[in-house]
Amino acid sequence: MTTSEEFRGGLDAVLAAYERIRNVVHRTPVFTCRAINEQCSATVFFKCENFQRVGAFKFRGASYAVLSLADEEAVRGVVTHSSGNHAAALALAARIRSIPAYIVMPRNAPAIKRQAVENYGGQITECEPTQEAREIACRELMHRTGATLIHPYDDPRVIAGQGTVALEFLQDVPDLDVLIAPVGGGGLLSGTALAGHGLKPGIRIIGAEPRLADDAAESLRRGQIVPARPPVTIADGLRTSLGKLTFAILRQHVEAIALADEEEIVAAQRLIMERMKIVVEPSAAVPLAALLFRPLGLQGLRVGIILSGGNVDLSPLFARGDAQS
Amino acid sequence: MTTSEEFRGGLDAVLAAYERIRNVVHRTPVFTCRAINEQCSATVFFKCENFQRVGAFKFRGASYAVLSLADEEAVRGVVTHSSGNHAAALALAARIRSIPAYIVMPRNAPAIKRQAVENYGGQITECEPTQEAREIACRELMHRTGATLIHPYDDPRVIAGQGTVALEFLQDVPDLDVLIAPVGGGGLLSGTALAGHGLKPGIRIIGAEPRLADDAAESLRRGQIVPARPPVTIADGLRTSLGKLTFAILRQHVEAIALADEEEIVAAQRLIMERMKIVVEPSAAVPLAALLFRPLGLQGLRVGIILSGGNVDLSPLFARGDAQS
Repeated sequence: MTTSEEFRGGLDAVLAAYERIRNVVHRTPVFTCRAINEQCSATVFFKCENFQRVGAFKFRGASYAVLSLADEEAVRGVVTHSSGNHAAALALAARIRSIPAYIVMPRNAPAIKRQAVENYGGQITECEPTQEAREIACRELMHRTGATLIHPYDDPRVIAGQGTVALEFLQDVPDLDVLIAPVGGGGLLSGTALAGHGLKPGIRIIGAEPRLADDAAESLRRGQIVPARPPVTIADGLRTSLGKLTFAILRQHVEAIALADEEEIVAAQRLIMERMKIVVEPSAAVPLAALLFRPLGLQGLRVGIILSGGNVDLSPLFARGDAQS
Repeated sequence: MTTSEEFRGGLDAVLAAYERIRNVVHRTPVFTCRAINEQCSATVFFKCENFQRVGAFKFRGASYAVLSLADEEAVRGVVTHSSGNHAAALALAARIRSIPAYIVMPRNAPAIKRQAVENYGGQITECEPTQEAREIACRELMHRTGATLIHPYDDPRVIAGQGTVALEFLQDVPDLDVLIAPVGGGGLLSGTALAGHGLKPGIRIIGAEPRLADDAAESLRRGQIVPARPPVTIADGLRTSLGKLTFAILRQHVEAIALADEEEIVAAQRLIMERMKIVVEPSAAVPLAALLFRPLGLQGLRVGIILSGGNVDLSPLFARGDAQS
């Protein structure tokens, strides 16, 4: 299995990333759940990136990108636009390297994700919730500060960093038949594909996205990048469009993009939280939603699902001043 | 360190229990959290019994009790009264042995815990939420069916089974200075004490309970069992009174019972869910609440906390038909 023109040596890049970041990232555990296996008629393994630092896989790519900078570049800081988890991840990665992080966030970003960025010392600039407004704000910040742009997904270092999820996953569960990852901008799914096919050429790589943000499915179907629709899905981590690099990698490696409806995403999120007793955000539940509700033909197989993050606003649970029990 | 008159050979009993149940219980992981360590000025290890089968440590004691029955006893079934998790645990343990489980539950038991009992095939009999009503209903059931009573905590097999939590904990983290477990009827804390002092005589054993259900603290202070007050704490797993066996063990082994106020319990529960991304019920959060808010003098120590369960009603999170993100 060859890798894309734009991204040669995919597995080597992932291995190099892992060498660089293994001491700063958490090696996250793999969970299983009997009840979910029964419901899916498959043996499902969950790689728990909700337990990653900052609560999402995004810390892997961000920390690799930041640790890869030359000192003279790094000192001027890093900048990005993000719907949330990449922003927090970059802020923490920058703090670890003691450099500034300038974060462009859409006005409608969840409060919990803004807070995380601030807690990690990131400097937030607000913008309108459009791709264009984000990019303009980023360029202005770069011009003013000399900071390096760390794109949330369309960056080879970021993709390689995200690929370390699948690397660890296959180290722990070598005999997986298929890997399913959520797809927003495609960084996680691209890294998963490169690591997955690099380590195990026959493994099947499937993406999962909300039907209300089905731009990756559309892009692969049409053979060109289709922009994401206005962001209405509750899976707020998956509202972005594919990038040039990720599109090229996904075209070559991904067998299918499965779609999940909003209520299916919520049902899968609830199932994970109630049965597995772990906190996941809606975006993380999209692959299980697809597995539960779409005929993917994976019965009897060993399915690896990447739980991408766990940053969810739990305040409704505690709203009345007393917790439910 | 000697064990109580009523319960000689404590560690041996725990080891015997472990041999019997190790193939049916989950070996639960130990988690840590940097943010919580900073807040507590200690190195805190969490034994995650919220990941145990039925979502609580109770499955250990219940399965050991059920697996210990002679065939001619077992065939007539088992019976118990419980505020919830023991009931579900006994129902599952009975199902595994293919025998009936008759469960007496107070009318005000949380819906989620009733459901669990039903899912595992337990047969529920409702009663008033008093200790007396529970016991009367139990006796009636035993008389009618010939089933064996498996008391939720005041039973040597149950105590030995619960002790396997601390056994695994100290296998994984041998150099703990102190163990903190929640105390309701005292089964978990008794087992923790027997295993803890059996393996490591110098380890400190501390109980934690809600101030609104401070009967264990009162009992130890007065030197006699003081009944629990009417159950108002949100930590619904900790509303029961100590038993004869557990009282005797706690008197001998427990250094202190730390009290936590309701809002402290909720704050600790929220901290665990938000930072560790795991689901815990209020009862499970009581030890961390005590560590955070009481001057226990454990700064700089290696503190082992048992997270007792994760059966919490998450419906407020999903109440509006769309999850928070």
